[in-house]
Amino acid sequence: MQPMTEPSSDFQARVLPRLAALLGDRISTSRVMREQHGHGEGLPDSAMPDAVAFAQTTEEVAAIAAICNDTRTPLIPFGAGSSLEGHVVPLFGGVALDLSGMTRIIAVNAESMDCRVEAGVTKEQLNSELRASGLFFPVDPGAHATLGGMAATRASGTNAVRYGTMREVTLGLTVVTPNGRIIRTGGRARKSAAGLDLTRLYVGSEGTLGVITEVALKLSGIPETISSAVCQFPDMQSAVGTVIAALQIGINVARIELADEMQMRACIRYSKLDEFQEQPTLFFEFHGTPAVAAEQTETMQALAEEFGGNGFQFANRPEERSRLWTARHNTYFANVALIPGHRLIGTDACVPISELAACIEATRKDIEESGMTAPLVGHVGDGNFHLAILFDPENPEDRRKAEALASRVSLRAIQFGGTCSGEHGIGIGKIRYMETEHGVALDVMRTIKTALDPNGIMNPGKMLPSGMGDR
Amino acid sequence: MQPMTEPSSDFQARVLPRLAALLGDRISTSRVMREQHGHGEGLPDSAMPDAVAFAQTTEEVAAIAAICNDTRTPLIPFGAGSSLEGHVVPLFGGVALDLSGMTRIIAVNAESMDCRVEAGVTKEQLNSELRASGLFFPVDPGAHATLGGMAATRASGTNAVRYGTMREVTLGLTVVTPNGRIIRTGGRARKSAAGLDLTRLYVGSEGTLGVITEVALKLSGIPETISSAVCQFPDMQSAVGTVIAALQIGINVARIELADEMQMRACIRYSKLDEFQEQPTLFFEFHGTPAVAAEQTETMQALAEEFGGNGFQFANRPEERSRLWTARHNTYFANVALIPGHRLIGTDACVPISELAACIEATRKDIEESGMTAPLVGHVGDGNFHLAILFDPENPEDRRKAEALASRVSLRAIQFGGTCSGEHGIGIGKIRYMETEHGVALDVMRTIKTALDPNGIMNPGKMLPSGMGDR
Repeated sequence: MQPMTEPSSDFQARVLPRLAALLGDRISTSRVMREQHGHGEGLPDSAMPDAVAFAQTTEEVAAIAAICNDTRTPLIPFGAGSSLEGHVVPLFGGVALDLSGMTRIIAVNAESMDCRVEAGVTKEQLNSELRASGLFFPVDPGAHATLGGMAATRASGTNAVRYGTMREVTLGLTVVTPNGRIIRTGGRARKSAAGLDLTRLYVGSEGTLGVITEVALKLSGIPETISSAVCQFPDMQSAVGTVIAALQIGINVARIELADEMQMRACIRYSKLDEFQEQPTLFFEFHGTPAVAAEQTETMQALAEEFGGNGFQFANRPEERSRLWTARHNTYFANVALIPGHRLIGTDACVPISELAACIEATRKDIEESGMTAPLVGHVGDGNFHLAILFDPENPEDRRKAEALASRVSLRAIQFGGTCSGEHGIGIGKIRYMETEHGVALDVMRTIKTALDPNGIMNPGKMLPSGMGDR
Repeated sequence: MQPMTEPSSDFQARVLPRLAALLGDRISTSRVMREQHGHGEGLPDSAMPDAVAFAQTTEEVAAIAAICNDTRTPLIPFGAGSSLEGHVVPLFGGVALDLSGMTRIIAVNAESMDCRVEAGVTKEQLNSELRASGLFFPVDPGAHATLGGMAATRASGTNAVRYGTMREVTLGLTVVTPNGRIIRTGGRARKSAAGLDLTRLYVGSEGTLGVITEVALKLSGIPETISSAVCQFPDMQSAVGTVIAALQIGINVARIELADEMQMRACIRYSKLDEFQEQPTLFFEFHGTPAVAAEQTETMQALAEEFGGNGFQFANRPEERSRLWTARHNTYFANVALIPGHRLIGTDACVPISELAACIEATRKDIEESGMTAPLVGHVGDGNFHLAILFDPENPEDRRKAEALASRVSLRAIQFGGTCSGEHGIGIGKIRYMETEHGVALDVMRTIKTALDPNGIMNPGKMLPSGMGDR
C-alpha cells in the first residue's frame, strides 16, 4: 500500500502506451483520478492504481483485459466505489477499470419481467427507468451502487427477506475473462439445469475471476399496496423475539429491520426522527394486494403486542415511507456523525434465525465490555445484522479494540453456523475469516481462481487469503 | 457402450482388491447388480459398470474416490436411478457409487426451518419425517428421487414457481472431491457474501466435479390452507394466456401445470380421471392463510373465465388433491402406456414467459408435421414444458423422427432465450445442445472441470461435450 505520486516506470513503459492507443483520453494517470479510485467507502485502507481506464463497451473491456493479462498488470473493476470492504483498493497498483460510464439499459421485457443492463447502471437509474412499466428492481443495499458491483459482491439489503439477494435475482451475465474473451452466462429462462451454474460462480466473485460487463435481472411487479410501520420495544429480546415468531408463522414481510438504542440515537439525531425514542425498534414493510397487506399488518401487530411492543406507527403515504427508509439507508452517515472525527469498522454477521437471539445478546455483551460505541442495525429477517464500531483513527489502541470487537462478532457468526459476511463481501476487510469459515473448501476456491486467472491479474489480494489471490 | 459380462481384467487386478478391502461385501460385481446400475429411467442408453460400491459414510466415499483417482477409474454417483438423461450410465465402465444407503436425517431445525440430510434420503422420506414438525420440503420432481441426486441435477418440479428449485433451497453441501478430500460448502445462514458460491457450483454439476454426500436444505412451513383446482380450456392459446396473465398480475400460485389434449388422454386412461375431457387443462394449487388462498383462487378463477376456461373444479380434500397430483406425477408412466411397446424421448424446454405462447405454438406445429404422438405437459409458471415423444424402438426411422423432433424443440428453446433443460439436466441426452446454448462459456466450464478433476474420473462423458468431459 505504498503511496505513489507517479505510475510506476515499468507501467508507463510497457502498459500505458497500449492502453492509450486503445482508449485515447479515457485512460487517466492524474493523481486526483487515481486517488478517487484508490479506495471504497468503508475501510480506511487505500492504495493508488497506476492508471484509471474508463471503458464504454464490453469489447473495450475485453481489449483492456487482454493487455493487462499480456503484461501481468493487476486489473481492478470499479463501479460506484461504494464497497465497504476495500474490494476496489488496488493493493498492487495496476489498472482501475471504471465501468460507471456503461449505463445503457439494454432491454426491459415487461411481459417476462426481466431486463438486461450494462454494469455501470445503478439501481436508482434502473428503478427510475422502470417506473412507467409497473415493475421494479427489488434488491436494495444502502449505497447508490452499480448493478455490476452489486452482482460482483452478491449484495442484498433491506428487502432480501422477500425478494432475495443478487444470487436469486441475477438471470445471467456478460463476463470478460482475464484473457479477454467475452462469455455470456445463464439466460432469460427462470430456471435451467443445463451445465455448471457460471452465473452464480461470478456473482459474489468480487472481480477476482473476470469483469462483469452486463447483468440480466429478474424484476418484480410494483405491489398494489405498500404499508410501512414502526414499532418500538422495551428491550432487544422482545424485538428479536417478534422477528423470529413472524418468520416462523410465515408472514411474507417485505422488510423487517432492527435498530438498537444506540442506532436509534444516531438516526434520531441525523435524520430528525423526533417522533421516536432511543429504544430497540423494528421497521416493517408489507407488500401485496390490499387484503393481503392488511392481513399481514394485523398479524404482525398482534405479534409485536404479545412481545411488549408499544404499538404500530404507520407510514403509509409515500413521502412518510420514503423519509423512514432514507433514514435507514443513511445509518452509515448517521453513525459516522455520532462522534465527529471518528471512523468506523463494520461487521456483517449473518446467522441461522434459530441462533439470532443468542448471537445478538452475546454481541451486545461484547460491545458493553469493550466500552466502544457500536450501533447495531440489521436485516434481521435474513439473520443478518451490522455493528458500526466507532474508533478514533488517531488512537492505535482504540483502533485495536475496534478490530478485536469486530473479530469476535465475525468469528461468533461462523461458530453459530453462519457467515462473517451476509452481504458486504470479503474484499480485504474479512479475508482473515475465510480459512475459519470455509476450511478445506477454500482450496477448491483457490483452484478455481488459479484455473480461471492463471496470471493472477484479477483484483489481486482480495477474497482469497494467500495462494494466487494475494500473489 | 460395450456389453460386459465380466468386470475388465484390469479392473479386477488393480482396483477391485482395494475396494473389497475397504467395503467387504458392499462391493458387488454381480451381473444383475451391475445391470441395475447401468441406466437411468428415461433414455434407452445403458452400459455396465465394472462394480457397484455401496457407501455408508462420507469418509467411505472419500476412500473410494481416492482409490478411483489413484487408479484412474471412472466413478459414477448413483442415487435412486431416476435420472431421465442418462446421467448414471457408466459409459466407460468403472465404479457405480450407490448412495441409496446413506439415509440418515442428520438434523432438523424447526426454528430456523432448515435440515441436513445424507445424499440417499428421498424427498418422500424427508417429508414423512417432517410431518410432525409443521414443516415440509417443497421441491417436487415426479420421481422418487434422492436429495443428493436432486441437488446434483438441479431438480425442480411442480411447485418451483413459488418455492424455487434445488438451486434456491440448497443451503450447503458436503462434497467429496475427486482426490478424496471432504469439503463443506455454504452454511446455515439464509444468505452469504463470503467467497465463491461453491454450493451452487456443485448443485447441477451432475457428478462431474465430485460426490455430494450431504445436503443442507431450506424448509417451508406447511401452509394453513391448500386449495387445488382444475380448469379446462377450448384451446392451448387460452390456457397459456391464462398462465401468463396470472404471473403478470403476481398471483403467488404454488403450482400451475399445463397439459395438452394428448396428455389429458394419457392421464384420463392411466389414472382414471374420468371427470375430465381430452382438452387443454390447467392444474392449480394455492397456498396461504385462508384469506390469501381464497383471494388468489378468486382472482385466478376470474382470469381463467376471461380466457374462456370452463369453470373451476375444486379438489380441496387431501385425498382428492393427492389423486390429482399423483396423476400428474404419473404422466411418465401414462405416456409410456399410450402405445404399448413404444419408448419415449423427453424434452425439457424452458423459455422466458414472454416467449412461452409462441414457443408452445411452434412446438405443436412441429408435432403435427412430424406425425408423432407427443403429449405436452409442463410447469408453465416457470416457462418449462415437456414433450414425451413416443417412438417404436424396433423402427430406426421412427426413432430418428423422434430425435429430430426433440432436437427442434431444444434448439427452439435456446433460440427463444431459454434453455434446452429446465430441470432434467444434460447427462448424455442433451449434451449435443451445450455448445449452442453456452458458446464460449462452455470453455470456462471445461476449465473448471479440468482443474477440479484433473484425471477426469468423475462421471466421464456427461454434461460437457468433448474436452475432459468425455475423455
